[in-house]
Amino acid sequence: MKTLIKNIAELYTGQQAESQKSQFILIDDNYIEKIAPMAELTLADEYDRVIDAAGKMVLPGLINTHTHSAMTLLRGYADDMPLDSWLQDKIWPFESEVSADDIYWGTALAAIEMIKTGTTTFSDMYFAMPQVAELVADSGMRAVLAEGLIEANDGQAGLEKALEFACEYNNTAEGRITTMLAPHAPYTCSEEYLAQITDLAAANDLAVHIHISESKKELANFQKDQQRSPIKFLADINFFKNHVVAAHCVHLAPGDLEIFRKNKVNVSHNPMSNAKLANGIAPVVDYLKNEINVGLGTDGVSSNNSLDLIKEARMAAYLQKIKYSDPTVLPTDQLLAMLTQHGARALNLNNVGELAAGKLADLIIINIDQTSFSIPRHNNLSNLFYAADSQVIESVMINGRLVLDSGELKTLDQEKIFYEVEKRAFKIADKLKGVSNE
Amino acid sequence: MKTLIKNIAELYTGQQAESQKSQFILIDDNYIEKIAPMAELTLADEYDRVIDAAGKMVLPGLINTHTHSAMTLLRGYADDMPLDSWLQDKIWPFESEVSADDIYWGTALAAIEMIKTGTTTFSDMYFAMPQVAELVADSGMRAVLAEGLIEANDGQAGLEKALEFACEYNNTAEGRITTMLAPHAPYTCSEEYLAQITDLAAANDLAVHIHISESKKELANFQKDQQRSPIKFLADINFFKNHVVAAHCVHLAPGDLEIFRKNKVNVSHNPMSNAKLANGIAPVVDYLKNEINVGLGTDGVSSNNSLDLIKEARMAAYLQKIKYSDPTVLPTDQLLAMLTQHGARALNLNNVGELAAGKLADLIIINIDQTSFSIPRHNNLSNLFYAADSQVIESVMINGRLVLDSGELKTLDQEKIFYEVEKRAFKIADKLKGVSNE
Repeated sequence: MKTLIKNIAELYTGQQAESQKSQFILIDDNYIEKIAPMAELTLADEYDRVIDAAGKMVLPGLINTHTHSAMTLLRGYADDMPLDSWLQDKIWPFESEVSADDIYWGTALAAIEMIKTGTTTFSDMYFAMPQVAELVADSGMRAVLAEGLIEANDGQAGLEKALEFACEYNNTAEGRITTMLAPHAPYTCSEEYLAQITDLAAANDLAVHIHISESKKELANFQKDQQRSPIKFLADINFFKNHVVAAHCVHLAPGDLEIFRKNKVNVSHNPMSNAKLANGIAPVVDYLKNEINVGLGTDGVSSNNSLDLIKEARMAAYLQKIKYSDPTVLPTDQLLAMLTQHGARALNLNNVGELAAGKLADLIIINIDQTSFSIPRHNNLSNLFYAADSQVIESVMINGRLVLDSGELKTLDQEKIFYEVEKRAFKIADKLKGVSNE
Repeated sequence: MKTLIKNIAELYTGQQAESQKSQFILIDDNYIEKIAPMAELTLADEYDRVIDAAGKMVLPGLINTHTHSAMTLLRGYADDMPLDSWLQDKIWPFESEVSADDIYWGTALAAIEMIKTGTTTFSDMYFAMPQVAELVADSGMRAVLAEGLIEANDGQAGLEKALEFACEYNNTAEGRITTMLAPHAPYTCSEEYLAQITDLAAANDLAVHIHISESKKELANFQKDQQRSPIKFLADINFFKNHVVAAHCVHLAPGDLEIFRKNKVNVSHNPMSNAKLANGIAPVVDYLKNEINVGLGTDGVSSNNSLDLIKEARMAAYLQKIKYSDPTVLPTDQLLAMLTQHGARALNLNNVGELAAGKLADLIIINIDQTSFSIPRHNNLSNLFYAADSQVIESVMINGRLVLDSGELKTLDQEKIFYEVEKRAFKIADKLKGVSNE
């Protein structure tokens, strides 16, 4: 099927820094065939379906480089708590009760939220990944999936399962699913376990997803126990020889930046989670100065508490301005790049994150005149990132398919998903309440 | 007219820390007559109109303690710029072209945004206040209005005009408008001018609205020129003898906290603006420890870029958690108090900010099961502040009148206002572009 998106008022392709006015996009099944000014549309440009984007802005689909999507089940379950008690008394006990079916439904709620807020691709590190893959297939989303591995919990059996998943599901769901290996963190996996994962990733041509240097405590413990930072430790064991996307990276030791630069490590910056858990502000401006690639991620809902990348980008910009006492850092074109091309690069995806002939048709259509946040239209990109909320996202196309059409979800049954998630989340919460009241 | 709001699933009155389930509110014209559990509703409780709040949350209306509302005209006009050039090359030249009529329309756009995001009262410091008052009368909002006074621009004539406005408009629009005097800041008004304003405020029983210690530079300049902080300077000239609401208060010198505490100064905390302009994070936790009253404000749209107090509260919480490296500070019940009771106290308003018999009927009705942000309902207040966007605000009542009814604006013509604001904003931007291109 051929789709024409016509009359686009303002188009950001990611190929040019500036937006283009009055453009069309011709899409052949799931690929972009042509992008050109409306004046150049001719009878030779045939199509079966037309989407009129008059008065609208079109952007590449947004890319969430780090989340644990089924944690939607825990939204609002535990907030404003000290970190240790939050994890040990609330998050871990809840997660220990979560079934594989619960993961499917939690991920479904996440998919609703991601689609409605303009996300087309997400990178997930959690458990029960076959269920997550099933939801990705059903929802039409694009995703990079990896079973999270905590050595003490998962051990060798977990690693085998994670590898099996990665090999079996890579490039499935019409190519919308790719896979990675995901050791949880350098403080929850031993040197041997990490070395094993590094070798398996290399042997199977898989990229690696990991948390690094999220808290001050993590850095301090490594420095005390090993006289080196987590990043230096990982460099020493040759962990960065594979493509790596490293979530958080808030606290660095001298030399860490250079390790990241030399090894082309990709940073997933998660400002909302780092703020809510009081971990601090990652040195994103320094990463960018050192030509280290940075994408944005939401982390899981329990430390955010949403999966909305527009909110995440705003938080990223405002926190960097504070950190560097400079209102000019992380301007809106940089935010857009982090959410699109840089995110795609972080996830090792070559065919998304930009709109151009030959790229996959992942894009979002944004209303720029229907909410107060968008008026006046001095600068539509600024209005989107600094003022708007998700109401401005009108339509979302992934792999050439409209999964949100003028606000209407086309692949997911919202009423059923809300019902299932709440029933399952309450069942666990009630059970744990019962236990703690005994 | 008597209105019954029935079946309220979750009610935060501000009088109890906890929410109340299954409540009703009976409203007689603009006052709350009774709040009680549904089980106690009897035939003796008569009413002309019923609002069914089954499955909904009801809160006191939100209070914006500091804004320049007509700056909506400048939304997205200048972002990510160095502070001096932002003001001198963009904001001030634009403002110098703004007419009194433009202020009416800019404030109208602000009112749409405030109402749709749950704000019932705002405190405005700007110019052309009679036009702002006209819009407040038309829109049904509640507002505290003051002409901003910069001595070099406004001088004695401006002060006379500001006083005249304050005396003429105080307690107008069915009591929805109260007024203040508003010297811009201690660095834009001389000691004599501030003393004069202090005396006039005392003589006319007016409260005072001012910016204090917004930037590091302001504090440093005072300390260099006067060997004291702006706050110490104001205390020395007895400025705090009136009720004062002080916006920003980001940078303090030793002793300033004690001055604020002793003089019962009210702080308007504007975290989004302070972040976007890279001014820093105000020491709110220290204010609260010292029993200094703190409300929240958005500041003007050009430094925010919206007037959405839910976004503002989220930013306040996350920035304080970072500043104090403590995830437990500014929990959601504290955010609600700052947006309601504490905001009302900051603005010297005794009859709003809480829901109780005898208080004015300013309240908002929130959807807690229609967006992904609200599911699952482990904690509706947390979902509101940490996850939701303004789509969850369903209805807004001010002074007993529904100004937003199930998402529909009842007092303002959105289409006309969007048209007028954009036309006027573009006209000024185009004129200035012409000038700079000469």
